[in-house]
Amino acid sequence: MSLELRRRLFDELDRLVLIDPHTHINPLSPASTTLADILGYHYYTELAHSAGLAKERIEDPKLGPKEKVGLLVENLGPLDNTIQYSWLVELCQAFFGLGEDRLDKSNWEGVYDRAAKKMAERDWSQQVLKQTKLQSVFLTNDFDDPLAGFDTKTYIPCLRTDDLVFHLAKPEVRARLAKATGIEAGDAASLRKAIGALFTHFLARNARACAISLPPDFAPQPVSSREADAAIGTIVSSGIETNDAARRTAANYVFWTLAEHCAEHKLPFDLMIGVNRAVYRAGVYQGQDLYDSRVSLIQYRELFNAFPRVVFPISVLASVTNQELTSYAWIFPNVVAHGHWWYSNTPAFIEHDLAARLEAIPRTKQIGYYSDMYKLEFALPKFAMFKRILAKVLAERFVIDRNWSEARAVEFGHQVLRGNVETTFGVS
Amino acid sequence: MSLELRRRLFDELDRLVLIDPHTHINPLSPASTTLADILGYHYYTELAHSAGLAKERIEDPKLGPKEKVGLLVENLGPLDNTIQYSWLVELCQAFFGLGEDRLDKSNWEGVYDRAAKKMAERDWSQQVLKQTKLQSVFLTNDFDDPLAGFDTKTYIPCLRTDDLVFHLAKPEVRARLAKATGIEAGDAASLRKAIGALFTHFLARNARACAISLPPDFAPQPVSSREADAAIGTIVSSGIETNDAARRTAANYVFWTLAEHCAEHKLPFDLMIGVNRAVYRAGVYQGQDLYDSRVSLIQYRELFNAFPRVVFPISVLASVTNQELTSYAWIFPNVVAHGHWWYSNTPAFIEHDLAARLEAIPRTKQIGYYSDMYKLEFALPKFAMFKRILAKVLAERFVIDRNWSEARAVEFGHQVLRGNVETTFGVS
Amino acid sequence: MSLELRRRLFDELDRLVLIDPHTHINPLSPASTTLADILGYHYYTELAHSAGLAKERIEDPKLGPKEKVGLLVENLGPLDNTIQYSWLVELCQAFFGLGEDRLDKSNWEGVYDRAAKKMAERDWSQQVLKQTKLQSVFLTNDFDDPLAGFDTKTYIPCLRTDDLVFHLAKPEVRARLAKATGIEAGDAASLRKAIGALFTHFLARNARACAISLPPDFAPQPVSSREADAAIGTIVSSGIETNDAARRTAANYVFWTLAEHCAEHKLPFDLMIGVNRAVYRAGVYQGQDLYDSRVSLIQYRELFNAFPRVVFPISVLASVTNQELTSYAWIFPNVVAHGHWWYSNTPAFIEHDLAARLEAIPRTKQIGYYSDMYKLEFALPKFAMFKRILAKVLAERFVIDRNWSEARAVEFGHQVLRGNVETTFGVS
Repeated sequence: MSLELRRRLFDELDRLVLIDPHTHINPLSPASTTLADILGYHYYTELAHSAGLAKERIEDPKLGPKEKVGLLVENLGPLDNTIQYSWLVELCQAFFGLGEDRLDKSNWEGVYDRAAKKMAERDWSQQVLKQTKLQSVFLTNDFDDPLAGFDTKTYIPCLRTDDLVFHLAKPEVRARLAKATGIEAGDAASLRKAIGALFTHFLARNARACAISLPPDFAPQPVSSREADAAIGTIVSSGIETNDAARRTAANYVFWTLAEHCAEHKLPFDLMIGVNRAVYRAGVYQGQDLYDSRVSLIQYRELFNAFPRVVFPISVLASVTNQELTSYAWIFPNVVAHGHWWYSNTPAFIEHDLAARLEAIPRTKQIGYYSDMYKLEFALPKFAMFKRILAKVLAERFVIDRNWSEARAVEFGHQVLRGNVETTFGVS
Repeated sequence: MSLELRRRLFDELDRLVLIDPHTHINPLSPASTTLADILGYHYYTELAHSAGLAKERIEDPKLGPKEKVGLLVENLGPLDNTIQYSWLVELCQAFFGLGEDRLDKSNWEGVYDRAAKKMAERDWSQQVLKQTKLQSVFLTNDFDDPLAGFDTKTYIPCLRTDDLVFHLAKPEVRARLAKATGIEAGDAASLRKAIGALFTHFLARNARACAISLPPDFAPQPVSSREADAAIGTIVSSGIETNDAARRTAANYVFWTLAEHCAEHKLPFDLMIGVNRAVYRAGVYQGQDLYDSRVSLIQYRELFNAFPRVVFPISVLASVTNQELTSYAWIFPNVVAHGHWWYSNTPAFIEHDLAARLEAIPRTKQIGYYSDMYKLEFALPKFAMFKRILAKVLAERFVIDRNWSEARAVEFGHQVLRGNVETTFGVS
Repeated sequence: MSLELRRRLFDELDRLVLIDPHTHINPLSPASTTLADILGYHYYTELAHSAGLAKERIEDPKLGPKEKVGLLVENLGPLDNTIQYSWLVELCQAFFGLGEDRLDKSNWEGVYDRAAKKMAERDWSQQVLKQTKLQSVFLTNDFDDPLAGFDTKTYIPCLRTDDLVFHLAKPEVRARLAKATGIEAGDAASLRKAIGALFTHFLARNARACAISLPPDFAPQPVSSREADAAIGTIVSSGIETNDAARRTAANYVFWTLAEHCAEHKLPFDLMIGVNRAVYRAGVYQGQDLYDSRVSLIQYRELFNAFPRVVFPISVLASVTNQELTSYAWIFPNVVAHGHWWYSNTPAFIEHDLAARLEAIPRTKQIGYYSDMYKLEFALPKFAMFKRILAKVLAERFVIDRNWSEARAVEFGHQVLRGNVETTFGVS
């Protein structure tokens, strides 16, 4: 009974046309060109490396795309249990005619060739969007992205600010800022002005969010202009030799200034909390980051209090932070729970975290899922995974445990899948 | 099969007459007088506020009770998914003839009027107790509560000590203490004497517990009389200007002295661990507190070692602390796991936390649930929620997974629901 | 359907002959000689003590084995809900003809006598191994264990190093080291040499792992020879009066040196992370340790980076650390998730933690379970518990949720139960 119920709920959830509120899509090349773009996703390279494949082989610059796919496919055996592998199989089934439930040396070449042919079609990315029932996706744009050459209704800009907050001491970051804005940011006032210019640029091109990923030890606080001036002065004069205190002050100043601009422009500020970069230094590209789960949203109390009119869609990297996210979204009007991020984007954690959110956060304040994808083909299996779990939780914890009607459960599911993306980010 | 089993177990659990070991009931006005007392519960005001209703409107002093209910009901839509909303519906169904599974603008006025009529009946609180199968409830009494004018067999006093431990620097707290005890507490000895007088007063009026809620960074330790004298001296002379070190020393001294009195009088000391007060400063009344889940029971090791004869029923605010609670209750004879507190009092966390406790803590050392309610009407839906989860866990993890008989599961359920309240607190 | 599926999967998993990769078996007396060896397991003494039985009675040196069993059995009532009690019942049913699902005063004497008779048979330990389908077990050997008098193919040595790392300041530890190696370790070089001698000794006797348990605040880092010399000098001159800084430096030096030897000899280094010793000082023997769950694998980042060729099978004490373990094993090639340790070795935590690992860590990098037992009889019920949970997770989360065939699920189960023990430790 429960399995049929889950299936019925899934089918209803699956009818919906979606907006993906966080991806890393390149709007100038949104879909893959060969299966190497699919297999090159860090999940496959890092898991294959973790299971024993040398980084030097994976990242051998002499490998052509087909060779690379061959190399990886023949090393997927040790990870064929993972949910990430299941995304690969499901997308190859959906898009490239894979008939089996494995991609292995017996069948990958046929898939590779069929994929190459499909991907070469001029409207391939539109085909993927259509088959995925995906209306539009949010991007992750460098602050100096010209945001030109694409339809910003389908590919919605989002101002990513990690570089500005955490890497301002790098001369190249300041050079990019100067080039993008025409402003040499040498003190607090000019830096604020430059940030304002970025917002103007992004807003003119339909940006619907500002975003940043944050390390576990970050605890934002306001900084006086005087302190900011001194810190920025140090950064300008010392560059990458800048001491930690000045870096921290500058980071706080930039972060707080971003929040002020979000308030002014009514732009949501996505916070992705908890990542430590380059923990495994010898890891493959994008396969080096991990985390310290000892982080608390209490570190953000002053931010949430100071900016009551900024909506903060918040992602947490570790499932142990999910209860805090649930509680903070339940209490703070400006905190919204946002998807299931990275190391928490596997079924056991999603199920646990989602169940807690659905029953304790107002239904208007939780965004079910985003794909975080780099290539469009991944939205289909990732959202399918989420919708199956959502159907399971709604079936078991609402229809069965709480006697909800199926219609009510579906309506709630639709809201967290799509409705809240619309209301939170002002898209439709 | 599992659903029928859960239902059978629930029905058996539901037969039991209960004692509620922790509430905030006012014994002089235990039940509600209008539906505004129900809707005024912080869960509804804070969730409605979180979902967008202005605090100024919710707390408008010009609102009459019916207007307030109307305002809130019309703003419950965004939280109709929450378990808290389900408590409201279930109690209106049980007590006030609500026929639908929603309380909304189409039906609230009828419910309001029926409730007002019911609540006006002279024996309304007894009716609620009877229908809820509730024999008695523990109170949360200010240390200077006269404890007069009510039946202490039904409304069992509990000495709440947050003010003494954490707010002794406030002149009004010391004034209240002096007034209640006739002792001016100006040094360690006189403060100890005053605390002793409070215990005498409470014990003479059937108090069965001492209780306190504690912030995540509290780590109790003994303080010498000399240190305590100095700290209390500073408090007396500096009042709210007292520095943090002296406050901390005084807090430790008072806390340790309370534990000593609990030992002397064989009174359990309820510790509710992990809350940060006033995190969201612009929140509604009682809707401002949150937490930092980075807390450990290791902070209490010296306390547990120093007071082997004091029973510590412990509640933890965050589910991530539940395993520590489970382990500490498994090892320390004087640690008892106590209910599911506040932000952990939602089904997903209860189910997870309860399952861990039931299988690893001696059956005599875990108290299933307390309502934490302010008005009697809430015991029915809150305990019903818990009993449904208890039935689910017993069905799935004991009868099915471990081949227990249903009778054995029910017996265990009865013990954690009621038997252990009796033995832990010496009530019957 | 799900229950029959679980049963089928369990039956297939249960066919397997196992290698237990971590126990505390004494190879010279691997099985019990009376039921007092069984009931004397710390789980029963500590839980009975926690439930009210005085330590003085449990540890009364005048108690004979039968009296001790009688005392404990008659005090097991309060813990008959625990999973630990179920191990006792299951092993008495399997080995000693217990017919009921309880061991209590009505039946324990018959069981005691039958057990005594069985245990007196010359080949009792072989009978237990055979009935348990256990081929061999890893030991936990003191660094100065002669490793003589037993078959190291069945009882596989493991070099346990807690004493060397954390207790080198104790003169008796240094005396044992000198005696075992013939080397007086008075500085960094000689200490390294002595450690090398231990490895030579252990490797010559088929040791397959080095192991250590670690407190939550340990964060290993390399130490220069100069610093190590100074710290070891202090230890030699000050003994147990050695200051914390020198102890810490010496601990880091020894730990890092152990890792270097593991690299040199390709020996896995089992890390069991998170225990605080002697938290409950008045507890029974082996019933005093607890933990602070605020620990992170980020503390080990430099270790994992520095020793890419050392395999680190890692156990974490608290379930809240399980997601980090899952993520670190997913990223770091040299991190392997290892079993379910101690306070996390109960069904609710195993189920949660196992589900997360099975779906996100390469299938080659997770070892399902070890018994941690002191007497052979415990492998049967402990592994049975684990196999039931493994069958449940594979049934619900792979066969049902992800459409895996049963055969594929069983194959995966076999790999985590046995295959990965073979490949990780080089045994077969």
